[in-house]
Amino acid sequence: MDSYVIFSNGILKLLRSLNKVTLEDALARGCQPFFVDNKQVGLIRPDFWKYLKNYTDVLYLVDPDLNKPSNNKKAGIHLSPNFQTYEERTTAVGNMLEDLRKKDVIPALRGWRHENYKVSQRYTDTALLEIERACSGLFGVIQYGIHVNGYMRDKDGQIMMWIGRRSKTKQTFPDMYDNMCAGGLSADLGVLECVKKECKEEASVSDDILDGLKFVGTMSYFYEDERGLFPECQFIYDLELPNDFRPVNADGEVASFQLFTMNEVKNLIVEENFKPNCAAICLEFLIRHGLLDADADPNVSLYVEQLHTPLQTYYAGR
Amino acid sequence: MDSYVIFSNGILKLLRSLNKVTLEDALARGCQPFFVDNKQVGLIRPDFWKYLKNYTDVLYLVDPDLNKPSNNKKAGIHLSPNFQTYEERTTAVGNMLEDLRKKDVIPALRGWRHENYKVSQRYTDTALLEIERACSGLFGVIQYGIHVNGYMRDKDGQIMMWIGRRSKTKQTFPDMYDNMCAGGLSADLGVLECVKKECKEEASVSDDILDGLKFVGTMSYFYEDERGLFPECQFIYDLELPNDFRPVNADGEVASFQLFTMNEVKNLIVEENFKPNCAAICLEFLIRHGLLDADADPNVSLYVEQLHTPLQTYYAGR
Repeated sequence: MDSYVIFSNGILKLLRSLNKVTLEDALARGCQPFFVDNKQVGLIRPDFWKYLKNYTDVLYLVDPDLNKPSNNKKAGIHLSPNFQTYEERTTAVGNMLEDLRKKDVIPALRGWRHENYKVSQRYTDTALLEIERACSGLFGVIQYGIHVNGYMRDKDGQIMMWIGRRSKTKQTFPDMYDNMCAGGLSADLGVLECVKKECKEEASVSDDILDGLKFVGTMSYFYEDERGLFPECQFIYDLELPNDFRPVNADGEVASFQLFTMNEVKNLIVEENFKPNCAAICLEFLIRHGLLDADADPNVSLYVEQLHTPLQTYYAGR
Repeated sequence: MDSYVIFSNGILKLLRSLNKVTLEDALARGCQPFFVDNKQVGLIRPDFWKYLKNYTDVLYLVDPDLNKPSNNKKAGIHLSPNFQTYEERTTAVGNMLEDLRKKDVIPALRGWRHENYKVSQRYTDTALLEIERACSGLFGVIQYGIHVNGYMRDKDGQIMMWIGRRSKTKQTFPDMYDNMCAGGLSADLGVLECVKKECKEEASVSDDILDGLKFVGTMSYFYEDERGLFPECQFIYDLELPNDFRPVNADGEVASFQLFTMNEVKNLIVEENFKPNCAAICLEFLIRHGLLDADADPNVSLYVEQLHTPLQTYYAGR
């Protein structure tokens, strides 16, 4: 089999695993849209709703089957309009989740991180509330994150990329390959601020090198696992590094870093020992830097579609 | 108003004009999926079906309202299974379209180009037939094309871009700004071959310079006008040019070329005198080359979604 066929099949498999959900499929199997202030900000699975529906002071269902949406509310699960402000909503949902966590009925809540994410329908909308990071899959809210492609050029001008190996004790995807730096966009930092913080913590990048950070695009996908529904959008940064730079992890999250040629990266990302969304970030880098051939690998137009699932477009109803 | 707010509003308007159609909206207003060999390859509007439905030996409707799809055929318009081969289908559809053209009932057919496009469900699938380029909007089949960003770096390393101005006599979008080179992917050429041909014809780029062509991604959108439905996917190439290079048009399609700074390009693409899909190609270039700021212009994640509408994913039923 041609090497590009092996690569292409591997990439299509990777992208299918990242895009496990469409809004249509999810609705068809009983997931309910989740609304705050009548704006869809998420999707709730039936297996989670079983527990959430007991909190009748916080959430209520506008039943599509009754076919008479109350007060112009759309069919789905709504946050009670008794909570009107950002703070009231954050507290009400937070208390409900703390209670569920104590009862230990939803395994995903064991991964509590004490890190809050902002929730809005589209990234630019004013946030409606904050929720604990470990709970975002419960509500299927869009999570935003940042990923940094750390790379250098060898003496022939060929790009080589720094790839991290996640710590064996990491809660998620232990011991797997990863981008040089990545992290969630938490409620209190700007995008570039967050990128710089992660670069310092994860790879000890100095301030003068950080001046070279370039925002080069976003990637989005909609995956699912036992912890819930994860529509995710990643802000992508490229960082060209000096040849003598070596990333050194400072927060215990990365076990080691290794420099790979882009051909080696191509092999790594289809070998299934790479954190899937990070492998997809490498794929996007390969395409953007002119390292895939549209004639030799004619699936590239499919890859690009699958790397850019229109999440905010879905939730905003288009 | 901040300059980025003006830019951002302009870009959102541009992207809305390019993404006028979703599959859901189109179905809701009576467009019918178009199937060849029971694979959806397009969408046909009711105003076109009015004429096409007279060709009962070529097309037939599996009515969704009858609720008993025949022979496991999906609801929608099907090419008659009497035409089994690529050649038979191409001839049958071609004869129907030539007849319609003679009757002059569909204005879009006045733009006959004597250039055939391959039709398949996904780019990688074996093509099912070819149809005349001017008719692709009638059937809403995905059209593929190529666009080339011709740019150079000034003495300070800043990127400047060559922008074409379309001839005043061009059939479509006369006198508007355009990319350095662009064209449809016709049935008989590979992607890179097609790019090189367009670069020679439209800008007289020499073979040695063409060696620098880099395939860097695709862009897709779904627009509509009086000529029909246009789901389009563009293969994007970057071409860095020597400082002393000046594009010279060789086929009469471009009236002039001008070199702009990227700030000037940012202004041009929201001023509505730019062919919309070409403006979007420039936007993609600005993002990919690190020239937009994710904090200053927080709509960028929406731009990226809208630049990558999942057309093949729609038609393949996901």
